Parts: sequence; C-alpha cells; structure tokens
Amino acid sequence: MPENIGERLRILEDREAIRNLIARYGPLADSGDAGAVAALWCDDGTYQVGGMGEARGQAAIAALISGPVHQSLLADGCAHILTSPVIDLMGDHAVARCHSLVFRHEDSEWIPVRVAANRWELRRTSAGWRVVRRENALLDGSAAARALLS
Amino acid sequence: MPENIGERLRILEDREAIRNLIARYGPLADSGDAGAVAALWCDDGTYQVGGMGEARGQAAIAALISGPVHQSLLADGCAHILTSPVIDLMGDHAVARCHSLVFRHEDSEWIPVRVAANRWELRRTSAGWRVVRRENALLDGSAAARALLS
Amino acid sequence: MPENIGERLRILEDREAIRNLIARYGPLADSGDAGAVAALWCDDGTYQVGGMGEARGQAAIAALISGPVHQSLLADGCAHILTSPVIDLMGDHAVARCHSLVFRHEDSEWIPVRVAANRWELRRTSAGWRVVRRENALLDGSAAARALLS
Repeated sequence: MPENIGERLRILEDREAIRNLIARYGPLADSGDAGAVAALWCDDGTYQVGGMGEARGQAAIAALISGPVHQSLLADGCAHILTSPVIDLMGDHAVARCHSLVFRHEDSEWIPVRVAANRWELRRTSAGWRVVRRENALLDGSAAARALLS
Repeated sequence: MPENIGERLRILEDREAIRNLIARYGPLADSGDAGAVAALWCDDGTYQVGGMGEARGQAAIAALISGPVHQSLLADGCAHILTSPVIDLMGDHAVARCHSLVFRHEDSEWIPVRVAANRWELRRTSAGWRVVRRENALLDGSAAARALLS
Repeated sequence: MPENIGERLRILEDREAIRNLIARYGPLADSGDAGAVAALWCDDGTYQVGGMGEARGQAAIAALISGPVHQSLLADGCAHILTSPVIDLMGDHAVARCHSLVFRHEDSEWIPVRVAANRWELRRTSAGWRVVRRENALLDGSAAARALLS
C-alpha cells in the first residue's frame, strides 16, 4: 500500500471515528445509559460541566448520568443535542469544538435550558478514540465560554 | 486495487452517503418537496411518526408532507432539524440514531414544538442507500423514546 | 496511485473539508473572532443575511461580527448553530444546504431568535475550500427561504 494513500485514509477514518464518538454522547445521555456514556472517556478522563464542577474518571462521569439532576431531566423528557464538531487532528491527539444544547420537556414544548460551548481533547487508545477532557461552559455572555470556541 | 484499501474506502463512502441521505430530510421537508422526501425511502419503506401513526410506502410518506399538519407548519414557517447521526454500518445494512427537532415560527420567535428520538434502518439498493424504516418518538419522558436511542 | 483510488479519496477529503469549513462558522461567530469568520470566505465572497442586507468582501463580512447587532448578542450570550450540511460536490465547486439557528440568552433560558435556511456556494482555492456566497433567509413562512433548501 503506498504510504500516502494509507495516511490519507487514516486521516479520514480518524475524523470519522471522532465525529461518531462525539455524536454518541447525546443519544446515550438521553437513553440514560451511564456506563456507555462514561466509556466514551479514557479511564482517567475528565468532564468539566459549566456551572456544575468537574467529574474525574469514568465512575464520576457515570455518576453525572445516574445522579438526580440528569434523572430529573430524563423523567421530564429531554434532548442533549450536539452540533457537528470542528476537528483539529494531530496524529494520535485531536481537539474538537462544538455547541451543546439541552432541551427540557414542559407542557407541550421543549425549553432550551442549557446552551453551551464545548472543547474536547481526544486521544487514540488501543480501543479506539476516547475523550481525555471535555470542557463545557454556558453561553451566557461569559468570556470563558467564548474562549472555548476560539 | 488492494482489497484492504478498497474496503476501507467503501466504508467511508457508505458512511458519507448515509450521513448525506439523513441530512437531506430536513431541507427537503422544509422546502415542501413531498416527492423528494419520499424518495429517501425504499419503495416499501416505513416512517413511524411519534404520536401520529405509521406511513407505509412512498405514497404514504409523501402524503405526510402534502397533508394538512405539515402544510400548516410550512405556512407558519418551520425548521426540521436533524443532528449528525451515530452510524452503525453492517455491510449492506446500517442503523443510524439521531435527534430531530421541529421549530414553528410564532411572532418573532421559533418554538420547539417537537423534539424526538430517531432510529433509522437503511439498506444499500441499486440506486444507493435508502431508508427502510424510520422510527420517531417524542422525548417527553416516555421509555419508548429513550429505548430508540440506546 | 491508481487514478480511481485517488479520485475517490479526493472526493471524501473535499466533502470533509467543506463540512469542517461550514462547522467552523458557528464557534468562530460565538467567539467573536471577526477576522477568522471573514477568512472562511474568498476575498470577494458575499454573505446575504436574511432581513439584514448583503455583505460583500471579507471586510464587510468581518464588520457583521464586529458590528452592534452581533456584539449585543455576544454580550447577552448567544449560540450560532448550524446543522450538518447536504453537500453537492462538482469538481472544484460545491453547493451546500443547511439550517442555522441563533439562540439568545435571556434570564435562565435561551430563545431561538433566528431560524433560517442557508445555501452555500463554495470554491476550491489555492488555500483550500472557501465560501463564494452564503444566502440566508428566515424560515418565517416565506417562499424565498423554502426555495433555498430545495
């Protein structure tokens, strides 16, 4: 296999795998599958949730999904929406940026109760691409959220 | 052509074709083109719309777009938003999962009047990838909607 | 390199580059980086914003971001959301269609203040894919917006 072709294929495959990994977050969060959500991260991955502190490690990330805030959203009806990410691929590491929106069902409508900036650090592992760190900040006019997107 | 390269290319092309097929639904629905929406499905494809029954076959799917509920949305102004799908590819079949949101224009705002879970079954045909079955369920706290996303 | 493989790779790479180009608009707009937003367009590119006239050339497009309407959105907190585009690739030119949504932060919610149809004309340049023309029209029931999506 000519090296050039193999390398071009690998780049496309990596970008596809990263896109799919990030796309899995929303459906898994809305299905309530805490273990599958946590497994998107490395063992020692972190998830800093704007306004709600930082979860470190898969058990702590799973606890966000099984905890009372998320379970209340699931009981009401909710949707965790992520936009198609901008991906910067650097060999075995990558950074992706996207928006996330959380809609909560209320009466006959869905209310956008969180709209946030997201920056993902990702790493190639022996089991495929995983999240090393996700930072999330509410787009409420704060400079911190704007900085995540630049 | 080395078989390995051809296979890796085909997988990427299939995923790209499926993503593009699903991405076409929203713009076509909002342009009101009933025939083009229906043509995303196989001849005998089905579309089960949460809370609104099941359409079976292209003529029935086209009738959803040309019918009074959708035409009322178009007259008010609407957007059918689909998120980037999680795609599981299995040779000539695939399953994709994503969210869908319908916004209706009202005064100077757009109201999210439907937020739903979606599961798509897709099939490679001689004319390219087509939808075999789309199931859609409102994310209103029901277990059925959550099950579609897991 | 067999020409067929090179051509298939190039098509996938072009589609990926166009998707990434369009995905960059939202995060850059919400980070307030006027120069980086403008650099998504060709030097002589245009951006016709529904209800707000047309910007012609990079300086005029940058002025949309640094201008009072956009700065007021940033101060309140906002999110410019773009959906995964339908891409029609024709060699060195492409057309893409997608939705855009602008959410403005207000009290503890985010309000969808703009929901629009978008048609992008893109061109391969020596520096990569760039936007030649973006047309945007509010999905408020107008025929013009619907026409952009068909």
